[in-house]
Amino acid sequence: MMVLGVLVASWCARGLAFAPAAPAASARGAPLAAQVRKVGIVGGGTVGGGIVEILERRREQLVAATGGVGLEVKAVVVRDAAKARDWTAPPGCVVTEDLEAVLGGDRRGSYGPVDFVRSGGDRFAHTGDDDVDLVVEVMGGTTLAKDVVFRALRAGKDVVTANKALIADCLPEIEAVVAEANAAQGAGAPRVQFGYEAAVCGGIPIIHTMNTDFVGDEVTRLRGIMNGCTNFMLTKMEAEGLSYADCLAEATALGYAEEDPTLDVGGFDARSKLAILVRLAFGVDVDETLISCTGIAGLETIDFEYARGQLDGTIKLLGVAELDGAGGLTAYVTPALVPRGATLASISDATNAVEVASRNLEASLFVGRGAGRFPTANSCVSDVVACARGALPEPFAKKVGGVAFRSDFESFFYIRIRYRNAIGIVKALGEICARHDVSIDSLLQKPHSDYFVVVTEAGPRSRVEKVAADVEAEAWCVGDVFFMPVATQE
Amino acid sequence: MMVLGVLVASWCARGLAFAPAAPAASARGAPLAAQVRKVGIVGGGTVGGGIVEILERRREQLVAATGGVGLEVKAVVVRDAAKARDWTAPPGCVVTEDLEAVLGGDRRGSYGPVDFVRSGGDRFAHTGDDDVDLVVEVMGGTTLAKDVVFRALRAGKDVVTANKALIADCLPEIEAVVAEANAAQGAGAPRVQFGYEAAVCGGIPIIHTMNTDFVGDEVTRLRGIMNGCTNFMLTKMEAEGLSYADCLAEATALGYAEEDPTLDVGGFDARSKLAILVRLAFGVDVDETLISCTGIAGLETIDFEYARGQLDGTIKLLGVAELDGAGGLTAYVTPALVPRGATLASISDATNAVEVASRNLEASLFVGRGAGRFPTANSCVSDVVACARGALPEPFAKKVGGVAFRSDFESFFYIRIRYRNAIGIVKALGEICARHDVSIDSLLQKPHSDYFVVVTEAGPRSRVEKVAADVEAEAWCVGDVFFMPVATQE
Repeated sequence: MMVLGVLVASWCARGLAFAPAAPAASARGAPLAAQVRKVGIVGGGTVGGGIVEILERRREQLVAATGGVGLEVKAVVVRDAAKARDWTAPPGCVVTEDLEAVLGGDRRGSYGPVDFVRSGGDRFAHTGDDDVDLVVEVMGGTTLAKDVVFRALRAGKDVVTANKALIADCLPEIEAVVAEANAAQGAGAPRVQFGYEAAVCGGIPIIHTMNTDFVGDEVTRLRGIMNGCTNFMLTKMEAEGLSYADCLAEATALGYAEEDPTLDVGGFDARSKLAILVRLAFGVDVDETLISCTGIAGLETIDFEYARGQLDGTIKLLGVAELDGAGGLTAYVTPALVPRGATLASISDATNAVEVASRNLEASLFVGRGAGRFPTANSCVSDVVACARGALPEPFAKKVGGVAFRSDFESFFYIRIRYRNAIGIVKALGEICARHDVSIDSLLQKPHSDYFVVVTEAGPRSRVEKVAADVEAEAWCVGDVFFMPVATQE
Repeated sequence: MMVLGVLVASWCARGLAFAPAAPAASARGAPLAAQVRKVGIVGGGTVGGGIVEILERRREQLVAATGGVGLEVKAVVVRDAAKARDWTAPPGCVVTEDLEAVLGGDRRGSYGPVDFVRSGGDRFAHTGDDDVDLVVEVMGGTTLAKDVVFRALRAGKDVVTANKALIADCLPEIEAVVAEANAAQGAGAPRVQFGYEAAVCGGIPIIHTMNTDFVGDEVTRLRGIMNGCTNFMLTKMEAEGLSYADCLAEATALGYAEEDPTLDVGGFDARSKLAILVRLAFGVDVDETLISCTGIAGLETIDFEYARGQLDGTIKLLGVAELDGAGGLTAYVTPALVPRGATLASISDATNAVEVASRNLEASLFVGRGAGRFPTANSCVSDVVACARGALPEPFAKKVGGVAFRSDFESFFYIRIRYRNAIGIVKALGEICARHDVSIDSLLQKPHSDYFVVVTEAGPRSRVEKVAADVEAEAWCVGDVFFMPVATQE
């Protein structure tokens, strides 16, 4: 009855078509919203609660930002509806265990230009009163979450997600489902939108930026600090000389580590983000398991001493992707020696940073919180607002093609070797390096140290890996050889 | 005839409505663009030429990014059409001195939902074949440019501009004209869009970010390095100990300075940008002449020596705007002592940076080129693409109101005084500070120096100004007293 009423009103009085459709908003004292978007949230934890809170707190401003669209949370789906929450459901919002509360209803097919017009331009006026227009998935995981996201898209609903793992795992599949959902829309009907700003570097709007501000540009290199937990640990190791184990314990206590800290310290979390950014920045779909990935577990206090004292730098876990100038792209995650003068060296604690080199913009840097309730929720809300405006950018604006991925990469390298005294160490090292065509830039050793450091000239990682293996086989070598690239300042 | 043909085709075969409207693009071997946007550029200089080049170079990718809209430059209006250019007009584009080539035609009024639908959702299908849909103003100035922008908006055309001076000068007026242009559109007709990404910090997408990613957030402080010329000079002064005059000569030779360098070194260029950002971040319309503005001409080599040697920092020209926690906002442009550990201290040469503190995102930083042909042109192209998608954010998304501007501000201050030996200097200084209720944190003096430096406790700038005036009146004071705030690290 409600919907019919709106249709009739807008058909009869075109000029008033935008006015009478928002009883929910105006009844609650908020500014007049000419239209309403019904939002359903799947996941009522840290991020879900943050989204509910921001949408309530910023209600009035968001109507202004959307140009007159009210955002009403109709349902939050949780695993246990009886559990106490640190957020309050707004009036008219159910907290339920039933996924149908957000997935029910179907926007497909019934659209045609005439329906769209008769509803006064309100793209959702014809759906059932309680049907959700826009699904926000913040439950995490890659099984049920995948079902939720794909079902919602196929029902023609807009989807916003914070699920990095899902996107990194299923990127081409998601792209196909978004395309399929759009193909199913009638001509003149609105696009089905897909937003995932929160999935990569939480509070940094790098996805929007890639899909809007770099569409006229050509990215040549992207590198960054993409994991807050490890950057917190590395900052501690450097500033306080603490051991890896102590720093991990502190990061875990502060809630910076993922449930399985291997994802952080092994570099895998950063690698998932890098894989998504590679798709966005370079139009390359790469299976993330092919991206070379070294974590921070091999780092020791001595490496920070060499970095600071001998090499005027610090150590950061970087994700790097770079065109090689010959139609190829290389990408890798690794600890790297970063010169003190590079801005990335000044990024401390749990902060994330993404640096982009490109043909037009030359050099850009984006710095922000990588995770946390409100940074992540804020990114979801930005996506929701853009959806409400029908303005979310194409989710993968850059077309795929023309660039070949290769897993090896070139750099100067830092190689740290622990040794016991013996005759002929330098000779043996020289022979091993020559055998693998690795040129030595310098040999460094602090006085009275069991360690020495080799800095190489620029060359492929694969060769340095062979050098490390051969050195480890020498009788004078103690334990593992550790190596990492030396990053350029700019 | 063309337009009528499209109308009939789309009316008869709704499913094909998006297909047949793009003869210009398909005839030129570009990918199939389902629709075409006709772009007119006013200004054929550095930035205008850059825009033409990017639109040509990225033609195929931009069709993908817009979801199937071809961007055709139909006209570039220049002061002297006979002058040789370092760019080539694409086929079908006229280079002319006649503004009517871009301002002709009128999109107003004729829109209604039915027209919109009959054209298969192509918002511009009904305009004349040669009429421009979107006007890019890159001529600069505030007289003719204002006419162009306002006429285009009033004719219902989208407008993209790089004109910082125009926006800073006429912000409320522009806002009103955009609103008026939109009110004149029929119900269901597309919004008239206004983009000005390039107007503030050239290559940094700070306008988009403010209008999309901060709409759910509450900014508490914004500060940044907003002028490339002065940052280049300050970097030189610090690194090479060069004088102010030598650095200005070098910046001018490199093309970093505005035509009138007073705009740079006096802080006025940064102030214009700050005024625009204050509107966006805080919803406050402030007359920029009310913003306290100190340039860098008073700085001497000695200040860098004190900054580096005694205070472990450097000197940057900052634009700062900050909520005072009591419903007030303060904003100012000034050289400031920035602690070495602050990321802003690492921003060197002609680079710009904007740092935002906010409730949700906590701390964000955006760094990029402040000017230059392709950084600025790239920002214009991003706006053009968003316009083509009908997706440019509300140009002033945050509503005005609730915050009062005040021109004084509180900080720790650095005061540098040159003196000739006399009895009772410290006593006199102490009396002057006490008279104006300024508390001294420390007195610094390098050995054998004609200068000393006072660092104050936190207090209002207005009091420090009075202290400076009274010190200057003392017989032992030589020349002007220089003072600047000491910025916090975070």
